[in-house]
Amino acid sequence: MPVEKITLAEKFGKFSEHWTPKIVGELNDSYIKLAKVQGEFVWHHHADEDELFLVVQGQLTIKLRNQPDLVLGPGELAVIPRGVEHRPVASEEVHLVLLEPKATKHTGNVETDRTVHDLEWI
Amino acid sequence: MPVEKITLAEKFGKFSEHWTPKIVGELNDSYIKLAKVQGEFVWHHHADEDELFLVVQGQLTIKLRNQPDLVLGPGELAVIPRGVEHRPVASEEVHLVLLEPKATKHTGNVETDRTVHDLEWI
Repeated sequence: MPVEKITLAEKFGKFSEHWTPKIVGELNDSYIKLAKVQGEFVWHHHADEDELFLVVQGQLTIKLRNQPDLVLGPGELAVIPRGVEHRPVASEEVHLVLLEPKATKHTGNVETDRTVHDLEWI
Repeated sequence: MPVEKITLAEKFGKFSEHWTPKIVGELNDSYIKLAKVQGEFVWHHHADEDELFLVVQGQLTIKLRNQPDLVLGPGELAVIPRGVEHRPVASEEVHLVLLEPKATKHTGNVETDRTVHDLEWI
């Protein structure tokens, strides 16, 4: 398999749904995912996995239980450690790169109508 | 420990050395590293680890054995799978985000005077 380059802008152009991460690559035991988000997500945590959020476009607020909110703009990232309850919120559309273990469900411990079970590769 | 945001531009402002990755975060068993590179690195591979390169500034060529070169600009990334021999080359300074397992040495299977053993957190 040839090694391929992944152009983020081109991949973001391939989908428009919110809160539905798409897989663009994998390394070791993790997937690299892209997501477009707007509005408020559910409070959730991941019991065994740390999760990376990197903002590419827009401004993402990550609400955290018992801690100040994080506000991330383009070129800013945060790692939400396992077990830390969080809730992403975006007043306008945000484009995100996520990195998380393959086993991770994006809604963590919470099963909602937003939980996507079979993530799509783009 | 409060969750902190990492601003890439601010972190890149903290060092100037080439080919000396700095650690800015960790998740699961991996480090998030920043590097500034210019010139040609050594040919090497990582036997057991896939390695993520994301270009933030400049243009990086990743030479690959028996495959076409990859040329990555800002907003472009590639995963070099374990075992694939590669050589990063940059004619002008490139700013990179790397993600690799904590056990990874940046020169992979090759020990050179460029091998940095104790990476610094910034």
